[in-house]
Formats: sequence, structure tokens, C-alpha cells
Amino acid sequence: MFQAKARADILKEVVNVVSTLVDEAKFSMNAEGLTIKAVDPAHIAMVDLTLGKDAFEEFKADEVEIGIDIDKLSQFLKLARSDDIIDLKHDEEKRRLNISVGDITRRMSLIDTTGMSDPKVPSLNLPVTLTVKVDDLVQGIKASETVSDHIALVASPEGFEMTCEGDMDQVNWKKSKKDMESLEAPSSVRSLFPLEYFSNMLKAVPSGSLATMHLGNDYPVRVEFKIAGGKGDVRYLLAPRIESGD
Amino acid sequence: MFQAKARADILKEVVNVVSTLVDEAKFSMNAEGLTIKAVDPAHIAMVDLTLGKDAFEEFKADEVEIGIDIDKLSQFLKLARSDDIIDLKHDEEKRRLNISVGDITRRMSLIDTTGMSDPKVPSLNLPVTLTVKVDDLVQGIKASETVSDHIALVASPEGFEMTCEGDMDQVNWKKSKKDMESLEAPSSVRSLFPLEYFSNMLKAVPSGSLATMHLGNDYPVRVEFKIAGGKGDVRYLLAPRIESGD
Amino acid sequence: MFQAKARADILKEVVNVVSTLVDEAKFSMNAEGLTIKAVDPAHIAMVDLTLGKDAFEEFKADEVEIGIDIDKLSQFLKLARSDDIIDLKHDEEKRRLNISVGDITRRMSLIDTTGMSDPKVPSLNLPVTLTVKVDDLVQGIKASETVSDHIALVASPEGFEMTCEGDMDQVNWKKSKKDMESLEAPSSVRSLFPLEYFSNMLKAVPSGSLATMHLGNDYPVRVEFKIAGGKGDVRYLLAPRIESGD
Repeated sequence: MFQAKARADILKEVVNVVSTLVDEAKFSMNAEGLTIKAVDPAHIAMVDLTLGKDAFEEFKADEVEIGIDIDKLSQFLKLARSDDIIDLKHDEEKRRLNISVGDITRRMSLIDTTGMSDPKVPSLNLPVTLTVKVDDLVQGIKASETVSDHIALVASPEGFEMTCEGDMDQVNWKKSKKDMESLEAPSSVRSLFPLEYFSNMLKAVPSGSLATMHLGNDYPVRVEFKIAGGKGDVRYLLAPRIESGD
Repeated sequence: MFQAKARADILKEVVNVVSTLVDEAKFSMNAEGLTIKAVDPAHIAMVDLTLGKDAFEEFKADEVEIGIDIDKLSQFLKLARSDDIIDLKHDEEKRRLNISVGDITRRMSLIDTTGMSDPKVPSLNLPVTLTVKVDDLVQGIKASETVSDHIALVASPEGFEMTCEGDMDQVNWKKSKKDMESLEAPSSVRSLFPLEYFSNMLKAVPSGSLATMHLGNDYPVRVEFKIAGGKGDVRYLLAPRIESGD
Repeated sequence: MFQAKARADILKEVVNVVSTLVDEAKFSMNAEGLTIKAVDPAHIAMVDLTLGKDAFEEFKADEVEIGIDIDKLSQFLKLARSDDIIDLKHDEEKRRLNISVGDITRRMSLIDTTGMSDPKVPSLNLPVTLTVKVDDLVQGIKASETVSDHIALVASPEGFEMTCEGDMDQVNWKKSKKDMESLEAPSSVRSLFPLEYFSNMLKAVPSGSLATMHLGNDYPVRVEFKIAGGKGDVRYLLAPRIESGD
């Protein structure tokens, strides 16, 4: 059993986060709320999202997993204004999610979840932790997009920088420790990442919020941020690209 | 002879209504105002628009018919702000419409009207009449657009609904009688329509206004609404698609 | 040596003006400011832009010429708000322009200027001089764009008009002398120009400003206007198209 009401803008945040990596996702419900874990088709990135039941206007659920076409959900939410209340009801018999706003109801066929993987979020020892304003980061990412396909994240006890080296040009974004929300860096680390993935992830963070990053040396990055006004948590994990020696 | 001045926003409403069905149209003028009747190339839908002379700032006309390229007229009107006054003058000798706004005049070649049909609006016995807010309807139509190519309009003494059934999903929009502006339904009726035509028609209704629909059982729908702040009338007629029994 | 700071909106105006004709341009600096002269690849139009050093927040330069990819500069400026201060520094050794806003720096490879021409602005005897509001002109140009590829500029002691003659339609834009900012026309003149060039030039003039045009009979047009709030000057020159006699 799953039956809930939520503000449209909160569901839109969920869709934004998940759609950066997958077209279809398994929504896992239990009495405490909603969890979505998904890995992108190329197995380069992972998302782990939890939305507590207090992020909803109403929420009732047994343990249940439903497979949702993210694009259809997104289309439907575009009909709603931010503060519209969306009604969600799982029709177990017909294997559908009935989703309503105002006078409109869409009865959406669910996707079979048996083939969907159940990704385990690896526990990683990432020595550096830092927090910055996401809007600042996104400016740096936009400046990098025309220069190269990869971006290096570099942290040291003094600060944090993102560097993008193309054949012709170079883009550098840099914050010293005093201009950051927080920085714990016992040593200097550097890892290289596919820019498009990193860009899509950061652009899914609600504007105006903070992002916390955990970094190592040639290691994955873990990006953490809040959604639903603090009532939801997102963790993205992105695999590094090992730099060739040439 | 035809010579008139009109606010740009009123002419834009006329263009919006007519361009949903045809690229070229015959504008028929007489002392009382302007009439446009047109049938789409597939003969599925018809429009019948009248704009009284009091919808114009100035209006002088003998009985005259001129063939207009709707797209050119639309392009020209895009140069004008809503409250700009558009000057229209028929140059009979050169077979042109001279249209001006501010310092700009376009002398537009007219289209030969001899080949244009003169559609007769059929008189139909449509038992159900209902009135709803067009913006509500348009929301329901948008929700339907990704689900199927057809939409069923269903009215009963209790209310009115639009239903769209796809292979996978179903969209339903529903108003009960008490939430409608009016509903006269001696019996229950249902007709199926091509969604794209219906959608284009309803999107041409000025936002914020009411649409009146006349419905029967597997019969055409007639959609009526006002333009030009009440000084113009539009009737659309759309043929049903007969539902196959499978 | 070249090192400067400028508001983003002023640099955006420079980019707008130059990008109408070329993708790459030679920026010539000396102690007084910046000059850009360029000819389009088809040798139909020329731009001559000067930006005095007082248009900058800070400006220090020896005589130096640097070749800039206009598109890259434009991309970078899109990251900045109008009132952001852009920092420019020529790295002579690495042959780069380092350009910064906020936390972001792009180190941009310069383009070799040896192949770039050094156009001489011809001195022309253009008998007619007139000044009009650029926004008015742009409306007339937009009205013309769908009608023909060429536009005729016609001035007489009574006024100024632009005429565009297509196979079917004709667009005319007309100002009488009393509605213009100024008009000095000892005689009547007429020249025909490629509409796309003329349109791109006029659309690069900052909205709300005045454009002065110098015209002759089957002669080039010179369009002059101010940028940077009056601290920069632009002259465009556009070759006429000789009208065939048919």
C-alpha cells in the first residue's frame, strides 16, 4: 500500500535529481518515507535519495517498490504550479500509479522492477570534506563546458579549485578556505571527472543551497545536499577518470 | 471598398483562431463587420468567425471578399504592441491589402478567392450544452497530449469529463455539475475526437474566457466563445472519430 | 603590456558590434584605449570601433595587438552579470589573454594576427547625413525581413525611407523630416543594400540610442553610433548592391 500527497515543487526536486542519471527508477517506500537508489546505464554515477514522510502533506505506505518512468512523471508535474498538491496512489491490482492534480488524473502503468539493480552505496574513505555554495560551483562549471570534457577537482589545506584543461584554453575556478563554508583537508588531493556528469549533478542541486563534497586522490567524489527544504537527502557518487601520463 | 482601423490585439485574436485550421482564408466584409468561414484541408474541422464593426476603431466596407495569407498577416502583427492601432486598406486596383502600424506599411498581395470554398455551417441537433473555463480545459488537454491521439468528451446530467486512453496510460479530466459554469444534459453522450485538432482549437480561445460546448453521441462538437472583449463570436465545429469496436 | 578592468556590459557591447561581421578580430591597444577594425569575409562590410580608456575601470597598455576569438570571449561574458567587473591581462610569454570574473579565470590562447588584414577606412563623400532612433529603424527592418533580401535606403530633403520590394509584397518605412532627430539632404539619394548585413548592424546598436547614417547615390552607407554610454564610437560601412535595370 502506498498513498500520499505532496507539494509539486518537492516532487519536481526529486525528479530533477533522479533524471540526471536514469530514465526509469525504482521508488522504495516504507513507513518512514521514500528512498530511490539508481546507477546510470554506463555505471559511472550513482544516486541515493531519501525523502522523509514529513516532506509529504500526507504519507501512508507499507514496504513496497514501484518502477516509475521518470519522464512521464516529469511531464505530469509540469502541469502543476509549485504549490499545487499532487495526489499519489498505488493501484496494486492494476499495477498502476494514479497521480492527480486538480481535476486531472493520470493512471500510469508501472515498470517491472525485477530487472532493476539494487545498487549498494560503497563505503569510501575520502579524506577531504568541503562545503560551498552550489550557485558558485555552477558558474565555474559553465565556464568549463566549452573547454574540455573533463574537470579536475583539487583540494588542499588552503582551498579548493576546479580546473579544466583544453588543447587551447584553460579554465580555473578557485576558492580560498576563508571564502568557503567549510574545508577539512588534512592533505592535498586531486581527482579528474567526466564534466558532463559532474555538471548535470550540480545543476540538479536546488539553487541557493549548499553542497558538501567528499574527495580523495584519484578517487570518486561524493556530493551531498538537501532537498525539500531540508526534509530530503541526496548523495551522488561519481567515478573518477584516471589521468593518463601523457 | 474596405478601410478600417483596429487594435493589434484584436487582430491577433482573429489570426490565432483562423490559423489553427488554415493558412489562407477569405475575409468577407459588409457594412456590419467581418466574417471568416473556413474548413481545414482535411475537412475535419470548420471555423465561423464574426467580428462586429464596433470591434474596430474605425470600419467602412461595402460587400467585398479578400483572400489573405494568414501567416503574412501574423508576421506583420508581431511587429505591433497589443494596443497599437493597425490600419487596413483594400487597394482594389492593385489587388492588395495595405496594412500599416506606426511608420511601417506592408502592401500585401491578395490571394485569389475563386478557388476557396464557401462552407455552410450545418445545423446540428446537439442535445448537451455546457460551459466551462477554457484554462481548466487546456490543462486537461495538455495532460492528455502524450498519452494518445484521441480524446473522448463525455457528458451526463452529473458532469463532464475528457478521457484519453493510451496503450499504457490513461488521463482523465473531470468536472461535476456544481463546479461548471453551466450544464444542460438531458441524457449521457460520448464522442471521440482527434486530440490535435481539439487541442489547437481550445488553445486559440483567449485565456481567462469561457467556452461553451455542444455535444451529442458520436456527433460533432461545436465550441463557441467570444473574442475582442465580447464584440466577436467564434464557432468551431469538429467532426468525431467513430470508435472501432475492438 | 595590456592589463585592464571593465564592466561586463561594456565588453558585451563590443562583442555584439564586432561579432556581426567576424569570428576573429585584432584588438589594437595603446595608451589611449582600444581600437578594432575588421572586414567581413565577403568584403562587403567593415567595422571601426574605438573604446577610450575612460570606458574602462582600469586601463594600462603599451602599443600591442592581440588576436581574439570573439565567440570564446562572448561565451565567457555570458557568465557575468551586467555590472560584474571583468579582469583582462595579456600574458605575452604564453601568448594568452587571461580573463577573470569572480572566482573564475579563463586562460585563452590568442590567434595569430599576422594573417589579419589591417583595413583602411575609405574616406567617402556622402552628401546626406541623418539621425534617427535605432529602435524605430529596427522595427522597419524586421517588417522587411520576410519580403526580400535587399533594402533600399532613400533620402530626400523631405525625409527618409526604407523600401523592400519582393515579388509579391512591398514594405515601406518612412519618416518625414519633422519626425527625425536630424536630416541634412541637399539632394535626393538612393542606394540598395543586402538586408541581412544591414539588419545585423542595426541590431548591434544598443537599444534606446541614436544612429547617424551617411548616404549617397548607389554608394556605401556609413552608420555611426555610440557605445559604452558615449565613451566608445562605432562606424560601420556597408557596400551597396548596384540595382540591375530589369
